[in-house]
Amino acid sequence: MTTSLTIPGEARAKSVAEPGFAAFRLDTASLHASVTDPALTSMTLLNDIAGRYPAAVSFAAGRPYEGFYDTASLPRQLRAYEEHLEKEAGLGPDDVRRTLFQYGRTKGVIHELIARHLELDEALTVDAESIVVTTGAQEAMVLVLRALRRDAQDVVLAAAPTYVGFLGATRLVDMGVRPVREGPGGIDLDDLTEQIRRARQEGLRPRACYVVPDFANPSGASMSLEDRRRLIDLAEREDMLLLEDNPYAFFHAGIPRLPTLKALDRAGCVVYFGSFSKTAYAGARIGYVIADQPVTGDDSGAVVFADQLARLKSMLTLNTSTVAQAAIGGFLVENGCSMERATRRVAAVYRRNLRAVLDGLEERFGARSGFRPTGEVSWNTPSGGMFVVVTLPFVADDMALERSASEFGVLWTPMYHFYAGTAGLRQIRLSFSVLTPEQITEGLDRLASFAASGPRLVHTKGERTQS
Amino acid sequence: MTTSLTIPGEARAKSVAEPGFAAFRLDTASLHASVTDPALTSMTLLNDIAGRYPAAVSFAAGRPYEGFYDTASLPRQLRAYEEHLEKEAGLGPDDVRRTLFQYGRTKGVIHELIARHLELDEALTVDAESIVVTTGAQEAMVLVLRALRRDAQDVVLAAAPTYVGFLGATRLVDMGVRPVREGPGGIDLDDLTEQIRRARQEGLRPRACYVVPDFANPSGASMSLEDRRRLIDLAEREDMLLLEDNPYAFFHAGIPRLPTLKALDRAGCVVYFGSFSKTAYAGARIGYVIADQPVTGDDSGAVVFADQLARLKSMLTLNTSTVAQAAIGGFLVENGCSMERATRRVAAVYRRNLRAVLDGLEERFGARSGFRPTGEVSWNTPSGGMFVVVTLPFVADDMALERSASEFGVLWTPMYHFYAGTAGLRQIRLSFSVLTPEQITEGLDRLASFAASGPRLVHTKGERTQS
Repeated sequence: MTTSLTIPGEARAKSVAEPGFAAFRLDTASLHASVTDPALTSMTLLNDIAGRYPAAVSFAAGRPYEGFYDTASLPRQLRAYEEHLEKEAGLGPDDVRRTLFQYGRTKGVIHELIARHLELDEALTVDAESIVVTTGAQEAMVLVLRALRRDAQDVVLAAAPTYVGFLGATRLVDMGVRPVREGPGGIDLDDLTEQIRRARQEGLRPRACYVVPDFANPSGASMSLEDRRRLIDLAEREDMLLLEDNPYAFFHAGIPRLPTLKALDRAGCVVYFGSFSKTAYAGARIGYVIADQPVTGDDSGAVVFADQLARLKSMLTLNTSTVAQAAIGGFLVENGCSMERATRRVAAVYRRNLRAVLDGLEERFGARSGFRPTGEVSWNTPSGGMFVVVTLPFVADDMALERSASEFGVLWTPMYHFYAGTAGLRQIRLSFSVLTPEQITEGLDRLASFAASGPRLVHTKGERTQS
Repeated sequence: MTTSLTIPGEARAKSVAEPGFAAFRLDTASLHASVTDPALTSMTLLNDIAGRYPAAVSFAAGRPYEGFYDTASLPRQLRAYEEHLEKEAGLGPDDVRRTLFQYGRTKGVIHELIARHLELDEALTVDAESIVVTTGAQEAMVLVLRALRRDAQDVVLAAAPTYVGFLGATRLVDMGVRPVREGPGGIDLDDLTEQIRRARQEGLRPRACYVVPDFANPSGASMSLEDRRRLIDLAEREDMLLLEDNPYAFFHAGIPRLPTLKALDRAGCVVYFGSFSKTAYAGARIGYVIADQPVTGDDSGAVVFADQLARLKSMLTLNTSTVAQAAIGGFLVENGCSMERATRRVAAVYRRNLRAVLDGLEERFGARSGFRPTGEVSWNTPSGGMFVVVTLPFVADDMALERSASEFGVLWTPMYHFYAGTAGLRQIRLSFSVLTPEQITEGLDRLASFAASGPRLVHTKGERTQS
C-alpha cells in the first residue's frame, strides 16, 4: 500500500516532537483557567500515585465491577436493536442502516426505550420528546450548565463534598459553585436556604442546585423521603431548578427504594440526569437528561428545555454516537427495558462488598476492637452505592496516600479533593466496586496498619508538618 | 415485570407535559445567548422547510452517501478490532473486555491506528500521544476553542463563508469570530493580514485562524500549494495557530492531492482536526485532533497541547465511546489503515455527481445555453468535495427557498447563513452527495425553472419587497 500523496520539494513530513524542530510553544498562562483547574489536575495526580503501586489493594478505583462484561453481548445487542427498529418501529432495511450509520436525530434515537425504562423502574411517566440522549451524563451536565450560565451572576449550588465531574463541568462554562453543607441525610436544607439568601445578597442568581439523592459520590449519603419533599418545595419557592443525578439508585442494600426527586416533582423544577455507565457499561458513554420544563420567549420552535439543550448539543457533539446508542438500545431491549432486572447480579456484588467493608471496619476499628492507637476512627454506614467514607484521626492528604501506598500497600481517595480543598482533610473515600471479599479483607488489614501507624511528622523548612 | 418502586401516598408520577400541571417555566432571556444563536436556529428552520417538501429534489442535504452502508460490517469490524487488540497489542481477554466496556483512556484507544493512517495517507508522521480521539471533530473544535478562549479579548479568524459547526463551537465558549474574505483559491491572505492587524489595534488577541484547505464547506474552494506555504509563514510570523479541518480531502476529482497544512508545517503552528464521518460513517461520531504543540508553564504534567485538551475532555465527555472507537478501529484495521483505499468507491460517486452538477449547470446556464431570463447565473468549479456554489441574479433567502420548494420542487441552502447574514444573499449551495445522476438532472431542470421565474416581488406594509 503506497500513498498517492507526496509533498513537493520536501522529504517526508516530520513530527514537531523531533528535537530542534518546533518553534511554536503554547504558554499555559494564555489559556482558559479550566485547563489547569485543581479539580481536574488532582485526579490526574491521584491516578499517577495509583499507577506507581500496581500491587496495592485499591479502594481508590471508582469504576464499575467488570466481572459480567462479555464481548459476545455487543453483536447480539446490536442485532436486538436492529430487530427492534424493524419490528417495533416498523423501519425498512434502508432506514435501519441510516439509523445506525448516518448523522442522527440530535436528541437521540433510544429515547422511547429510555422512557419505557423510566416508567417501569422509576414509576416515572415522561414524554420521550423531553429526553436528550448524551455522551454520558457528563455531557448532559455541560449542556444544562451552559444553558443556565448566561453571565457571571449565574451560580449553581451543590452539597459539599461534590462529585468531581460536576465541578469540572461548571469550570468549563465559568459557572460559580456555592457549596452547601451535607449531613448523613444528604444536603442540609437549612444551609441551602441560607446559601441561596447569601448568594442573592451578593447580587448573584442561584439558578439550580445539584443533588445526588441516592448513595452520593463521594459521601454515600442518601436523602429521606421527607427531605426530598422539602427540597422540592424549597426549589419551587426559590424559583430554582434541581439537577438530580441518579447513577447509583439500583445499588441499594435491600431496603425499599425511595422515589427520585423527579418522580415526586409536581412543580416541574427537576432536571434529571440518567446514566447507563454503572447499570450497563461505561464504555458506551450513554447518558441522558430529562428536561421537560416549558420554555417561554423562544421564537425558533423550542417547546421544552430539552429542545434548547438539543440546540447546544448540535454545536457540541452533533448527536450521540448511534453505534453506542444501538448497543445500549439492544441492552434495554434484551432486559425488557428494566434496568432493575438488568442490574440484579451486579447489585448483589456491590451489596456483598458494602457489607464486607462495613463489617470489616467494625471488626478492626469498632467499639469492641480495642483500636485506639492515635485516636478514633469513624465511618458512615451507607445503605447502598459504591462508597464508604472513613474519618482518620490524622490528616489524610496526597502525601499520606503516598505513604499508605508505599509502606502499607493500600490505596484510597483523599476526600478533601471533593471539597475543593476546604474541608474533609481527615476523611478518605473507600470504593469497593471492583474488589473481591478477599481483597477487601486484605485491604482493610493494611488500612488498619496504616491507621495504627499514626501521622508521620516531618520537618520541612524548620516547620513541623504532618505528612 | 413489575417495579419494586412505588411512590408513597401518591398515584403514579405524572409528566409535567400534562395540562395544568407544570408550574416552573424557563424564560429564554435568562439563558445563555448560544441557546438562540442564529447560526443554530437557522439550520433548524432550514430543516423544517426541507421536512415539509419530502418530494422535492434536495440539493440541501449535506450528509454523506448512504449506498455502501452495511449492518453486517458492524459486528465484523468490532471483531477485527478485538483481534487487533489480542494479536497486535497483545492484550488478554480481560483487558480486551475492559477496553470495550470500562471507562477508557481520556485521549482514546485508537490513536495508534489513526497515526498509522496519517502516515500512510497524509505522509504525516505524528506521535500518537499528541492525538485526542473525540466525539466527532465537533467536540475537538470545542475543546481547542475552550482552551484558547481565556477571556473576551481572545478571538479567532475564519474565512467567510464558514462551516456552521465551527461558528456554533465559538458561540458555546463565547469566542468572537473575525471574518476573512475568501476567493476561489480559499482564504485571502492579504485580508487575513489586515484583519489580524485590525483585531490587534482593537486590543484583541487573534489566537487562531480556522481553515478548510481542501473543498471547503460551504464554498467548495481549495488553496494552492503556494498559498498553503504562505499561510503557514504568516501564522508563524503572527504567533497564531492554524486550525486545519480536513473532512473532504479524499474526495478530489482525480487531480493529484495537495499536502495538508499539517504536513507542510515546519513551525509547529497547525492544530489538525480529522473526522471519520465522511470517510467511514457519521453515526460513530469519531473524530480527532492532533495537538502536538509543546506547552510551557503547566505544573501538572502536560507535555503537549493534546494533554491539556484531554483534561478539558475529561470534564466534557470523559472519553469517546469505546464501542464507537472499536467499530472505527475495526474499519481502519480492515482497510490496512488507509482511508484513501477505504473511500475509493464513495469518492467515485462524489466525483461522478460533481461532474453531473457542473456539466448540468453549463448546459442550462452556460454561454451557449441561451439562458438570460433575468440576468446571469454563475457558479464555481470545485475540483472535489461535496458542494458547488451558484450565484443567482436575485436574492436567494429562506423565503425564496420556500418558493423554490413549493412551486418548483427543488431544495438548496441559502448561502447567507454561512456569512452570519452579512453577505452571499444571491448565492445558494448545491450539495450532491446523496443524489443519483437522474435526481441531479431532474433537480437542475427544476432549478433552471426556478431561476427563470425570476424574483417574486411582493408588497408588504406598503413596501416593495423581493421574495
